[in-house]
Amino acid sequence: MTLETLSTNKAHGGVQGVYRHEATTTGTPMTFSVFVPAHEDGAKLPMLWYLSGLTCTHANVTEKGEYRAACAEHGVIFIAPDTSPRGDEVPDDDGYDFGKGAGFYVDATEAPWSGNYRMRSYVEDELPALILREFPMADLSRQGITGHSMGGHGALTIGLRNPDRFKSVSAFAPIVSPLHCPWGEKALTGYIGGDREDWRAYDACAMIADGLRVPEMLVDQGDADQFLSEQLKPELLKAACDGAGIELTLRMQPGYDHSYYFISTFLPEHVAWHAKRLNG
Amino acid sequence: MTLETLSTNKAHGGVQGVYRHEATTTGTPMTFSVFVPAHEDGAKLPMLWYLSGLTCTHANVTEKGEYRAACAEHGVIFIAPDTSPRGDEVPDDDGYDFGKGAGFYVDATEAPWSGNYRMRSYVEDELPALILREFPMADLSRQGITGHSMGGHGALTIGLRNPDRFKSVSAFAPIVSPLHCPWGEKALTGYIGGDREDWRAYDACAMIADGLRVPEMLVDQGDADQFLSEQLKPELLKAACDGAGIELTLRMQPGYDHSYYFISTFLPEHVAWHAKRLNG
Repeated sequence: MTLETLSTNKAHGGVQGVYRHEATTTGTPMTFSVFVPAHEDGAKLPMLWYLSGLTCTHANVTEKGEYRAACAEHGVIFIAPDTSPRGDEVPDDDGYDFGKGAGFYVDATEAPWSGNYRMRSYVEDELPALILREFPMADLSRQGITGHSMGGHGALTIGLRNPDRFKSVSAFAPIVSPLHCPWGEKALTGYIGGDREDWRAYDACAMIADGLRVPEMLVDQGDADQFLSEQLKPELLKAACDGAGIELTLRMQPGYDHSYYFISTFLPEHVAWHAKRLNG
Repeated sequence: MTLETLSTNKAHGGVQGVYRHEATTTGTPMTFSVFVPAHEDGAKLPMLWYLSGLTCTHANVTEKGEYRAACAEHGVIFIAPDTSPRGDEVPDDDGYDFGKGAGFYVDATEAPWSGNYRMRSYVEDELPALILREFPMADLSRQGITGHSMGGHGALTIGLRNPDRFKSVSAFAPIVSPLHCPWGEKALTGYIGGDREDWRAYDACAMIADGLRVPEMLVDQGDADQFLSEQLKPELLKAACDGAGIELTLRMQPGYDHSYYFISTFLPEHVAWHAKRLNG
């Protein structure tokens, strides 16, 4: 397992890199980006994972996210994986919301998806192991996770599943319950199969109802988001957190939509919020 | 002359818009972006023009420039025009550095370019008149100008030509002397013709030598810029400014290249620098 450097650029005093490796979990090359802020030799830095939404690669947030100034200020490494396996041999779907660009951070069990679509294991296990080996300044004892839309779903579910690993969890306009939205129903039917009980392991609200816990969450949601009422439904997460004693800070942001103009407005605040918890 | 709104998105408390209009100067539709920060009704805001480099449209800086937070903080309108006329009927060249995406902010005099390639008049006259009419909060008595590479050339030359209009002039990795670099020689030969004396009206260093003045300039230049020694040559601008009593702040930024990772690192500082002069 070797790491290929596709590009490095100095930015905000640190280095924004893009890398590729042959991933065992997905059976494909996988590309991701890492921003490492300036730091003293031998220093260990906390890490913030950012999981992207439907149709995205690592590149969207890397180019449009406006996170580097905040990461430089707070000394936080920023890691952005891809959203699915890629390649001509990888099965795909005609829709933008299933198949390539839409891995949903699950380990698929259904054919033909189960061979490559193992983004849960990739993000939870394989990529962290690679980061540990290749980025010696990364402090794996101080990790936070965030994400947008489908990636917000990824952040919430992976955060809930690994509360010892991720000390801080936030999201932007997340899919909070795949059981209760068309995007989730299509994707989980395809990847996991028709038994909705099996979906509960990939549904943040169901995971909370089933006893999984993190102490707190920060969620920003634009109230002009075109997917708000049909797909995102933050009220379901609020009800689940209220019932479980999870301190949810849900900020409805007036006039903001689902785009990177929304994300880039608030991502610096999320970086600071995670840094406070990871550096504290 | 009507203005078509292609998109508006709330960002950093303001509105990032993208607009299109039928331009008389170029004889083509022209697209540009404007960020208007939050402001009180009736307030007048200073404007910062950003001229983009080779191959770019308005979109590059709009997506990657990381200027909105600073513009919101300082109350500055940010305007990003395209770099050339566009359309199937517009003459073009096979190179990336001439024709579409490479208007060089000149009024071409040579066929077949002179019909559409009139970016000087477009940026100096037509677009400001449109802004005045369509953006009532824009204060045309307080304008600054900046740009990158070819757009840095545009900012310096347009700023020098209009010192009463632009109260502040800065640039990122600008082409400072088209007379002394391959990009400039190719473009000005094509657009203006073979008489190099005619190029002096579009060469910042020659314009200074010929008596044009602004009180000061801020220029950032990465020392790892791959175009530094052959195309950009900031030492020529330094010599010209030294000889003319222009206060040039030339900051050689160690390790930075020619990309938007460089621009986005320092563009917030340029916004603040312009704001201080426009608000002062």
